[in-house]
Amino acid sequence: MITVISRQHSIHNPKFEFYRGEKVPCFESPQRLEYVIQALHDRGHDVREAEQLSDRVLPTVHSQRYLQFLASAWDQWTALAADNIDKQPFPSVWPVRSLRSDIEPKNFIARLGLYSMDNGTPMAAGTWVAAKAGADAAVSAVALLNAGHTSAFCATRPPGHHAGPDFMGGYCFLNNAAIAAQSLRDSGCQRVAIIDVDYHHGNGTQTIFYDRPDVLFVSLHGDPRTEYPFYLGHADETGRGAGQGYNLNLPMTAGTDTATWFAALDTACRQIIRFQADALVISLGLDTFAEDPISRFTLQSDDFFHIGTRLATLRLPTVFIMEGGYATTALGHNTVNVLEGFDNAY
Amino acid sequence: MITVISRQHSIHNPKFEFYRGEKVPCFESPQRLEYVIQALHDRGHDVREAEQLSDRVLPTVHSQRYLQFLASAWDQWTALAADNIDKQPFPSVWPVRSLRSDIEPKNFIARLGLYSMDNGTPMAAGTWVAAKAGADAAVSAVALLNAGHTSAFCATRPPGHHAGPDFMGGYCFLNNAAIAAQSLRDSGCQRVAIIDVDYHHGNGTQTIFYDRPDVLFVSLHGDPRTEYPFYLGHADETGRGAGQGYNLNLPMTAGTDTATWFAALDTACRQIIRFQADALVISLGLDTFAEDPISRFTLQSDDFFHIGTRLATLRLPTVFIMEGGYATTALGHNTVNVLEGFDNAY
Ligand SMILES: [Zn+2]
Ligand SMILES: [Zn+2]
Repeated sequence: MITVISRQHSIHNPKFEFYRGEKVPCFESPQRLEYVIQALHDRGHDVREAEQLSDRVLPTVHSQRYLQFLASAWDQWTALAADNIDKQPFPSVWPVRSLRSDIEPKNFIARLGLYSMDNGTPMAAGTWVAAKAGADAAVSAVALLNAGHTSAFCATRPPGHHAGPDFMGGYCFLNNAAIAAQSLRDSGCQRVAIIDVDYHHGNGTQTIFYDRPDVLFVSLHGDPRTEYPFYLGHADETGRGAGQGYNLNLPMTAGTDTATWFAALDTACRQIIRFQADALVISLGLDTFAEDPISRFTLQSDDFFHIGTRLATLRLPTVFIMEGGYATTALGHNTVNVLEGFDNAY
Repeated sequence: MITVISRQHSIHNPKFEFYRGEKVPCFESPQRLEYVIQALHDRGHDVREAEQLSDRVLPTVHSQRYLQFLASAWDQWTALAADNIDKQPFPSVWPVRSLRSDIEPKNFIARLGLYSMDNGTPMAAGTWVAAKAGADAAVSAVALLNAGHTSAFCATRPPGHHAGPDFMGGYCFLNNAAIAAQSLRDSGCQRVAIIDVDYHHGNGTQTIFYDRPDVLFVSLHGDPRTEYPFYLGHADETGRGAGQGYNLNLPMTAGTDTATWFAALDTACRQIIRFQADALVISLGLDTFAEDPISRFTLQSDDFFHIGTRLATLRLPTVFIMEGGYATTALGHNTVNVLEGFDNAY
C-alpha cells in the first residue's frame, strides 16, 4: 500500500517531558518516524508527501476555540517572556469536576490547563505546524482510497488518539484517526469502523464519536485501572444516546499474553463485521511490542505481521494511522510488518 | 475573641512547590502561622489548643473515598519507592471533560490526579495529620460558639477554601470553612452564611454548598479570568436547584482599589442580612494585602481593622477561619487587626 507522510513532523521536537516526576528526553521523538520511513524505503514501499487537505474537516472533529488555541499557543507562550523560547509550557491547574470549561481564562497557563488532560503532552515551536501536517496526511490517505486504492498508511507524528474534541493528552494534539474517519464519512461512507490497537486506550477517539451510531469505535488496550489514560477505556463504556452499542472496549491486564491479545482482536473484528462497516480506520500503535519501554504487552515482531493478516480478512477499504510505539529502533520493522501482512493477505 | 490553634499544623511542611514552572520554596509555610500566633500572644489574645472534634462532620463535607485517599496518600507514596520519602508527589494526569471520575485507578499518581485540580497543592509526610488537626480546630471554634461565645478564630493551616467535596487544590486539602458551616448547621443553626474575603475565589466552598439553600456563600475575589482558581468564581454563578440564589460572587479586576473592595464588602453584607443568617463563617484570607507576593489587591494594614468593624455590624455569632495570606511578616499584624476591629465594634 502507499504511505503518506508529512516531512514537517520533525519540527515538532520538544526537548523533554516529565516521566515519573523527572525530566527525561521525549519518548515521542522525530527519530521514531525516521525509522519507519527508512524501513518503508528499505522494503520497497511507495512513500508520498501529504497534501494540505484537512482544513475543512478539522473544525468538525475539534472545537473551534481549541484549534485557535493550538494554532497560536507557542506564539502566546513566547510573547509572555523572552526566555520562554528555550522553555516548554506545562499546565499547572485544570478544570476537574464542578470547575467550568465554558469560559476561557485570559491567563495562558490556565488556558493550557483548560485544554489539557495531562502534563505529558510537551509543546514546542513547531507543534502546531507538525500536528496540522499530520492531519493533512490523514486526509491525504483517505484521498488515496477515494482515488480507488484499497488501503493507505498515514505515517505521521505527533500521534492523535488521546486528543479529544477540545483537549490534548498523551503526546496527541489533533486526532488523526478521528479526522480520517470523519473524512471517510464526508466522502460518502455510511458506516466507518475504527479499531485502535495501540497499547493505550484511545480515549480521544472514543469521546469524539461516543454519541454517534455512524462510527464504531473498538479498542484493545491495557486496563486503564493501571495504564494510561486511567480515566477511560473500561468495558462498560458502550456508547451513549444514538451511539449506544457503537463503542467496544477490550481492556486487558498489563502483561497479558499474545494469544489472549489475538483472541481480543478476533472479538473486535467480529464486531466490525456485525456493524457492516464500509470503511476501516486503524489506529496503529506499535507499543504492544514486548520491548516497548513504557508499555506492558508481549507481542513480538512477527506478531505484527499477523495483525495485518487478520485485519485484511475484513476486506474493507482501510486507512492505517500511526499512533504510539517507543521501542524506536524496532519501530520501522514492526510497522512495515503490519502493512505487509495486510497487503499479502488482502 | 478566643483563638483555636492546632500545634500540629507545622508538620505539614513540604519543601517546594511549582510557581510559574519553577521549583520554589512553598509560599504556604509553617512560618505563616507562627507569625499569627506570635501576634496574638503579643497583643494579649487567648489562644487555645483544638480538640479532636471533626470526625463526625468530615464525611458529610468530603467524600469518603477522598478522605481515605488523603489519610493514606503519603504512606502509599513512600511505599512505591524507598527514595520517595525525600520527594513530593505531583499529579501528571487528570480527568477533564468526558474522562471518568467514578472509578479509582490503581496507579497512585493517577489517583492523585483524580483528586487534584492543580499542581499547586504540595503534600508531605505530615499533611494528613495537619489537615485533620485544622478541621478539628474549625469544629473546636464552632464549639466555642455553642458554649456561648459570640465569636471565635480558627488559626490554622493548611488553608481550606479551594478544597472541594473530593479534590484538593491551591494548598487546600480539607475545607475548614465548609466544615465549620456544616458543623454550625448540625448544632442547630438554620441558616449559615459564609463570606470569603480571600483574594482567591473559594471554589471548593462554593461547590460544596452550590445546591443548598441553607448555606449562603458570598465571595469577594480577584477576577478568575486572570486569577487563580481560573475556572470558577464568575458573577453568573448564583447556585443551582434548591440552592439557586444562595451563591453570590463579586469578582474584581486585579489591582482594584480599596474603596471599590469595601463597596463590594457592603454588597456582600447586605446579601447576608437579606438571607437572615443566624450564624456567620468568615473565610479570612489576608492576601488582599497590597504587599502580598502572589495577589494583586491594594489593602493596607489598617484596612484589615475596618474589615473586622464592618463584619461586626452583622451582629451574628461568627467563626473566623484562616485562609491565605503570603506576606508572611505582616500576616500576624493584619490578621489580629481584623479580629480586634471585630471585637471593638461588636
Ligand atoms: Zn500508546
Ligand atoms: Zn488566597
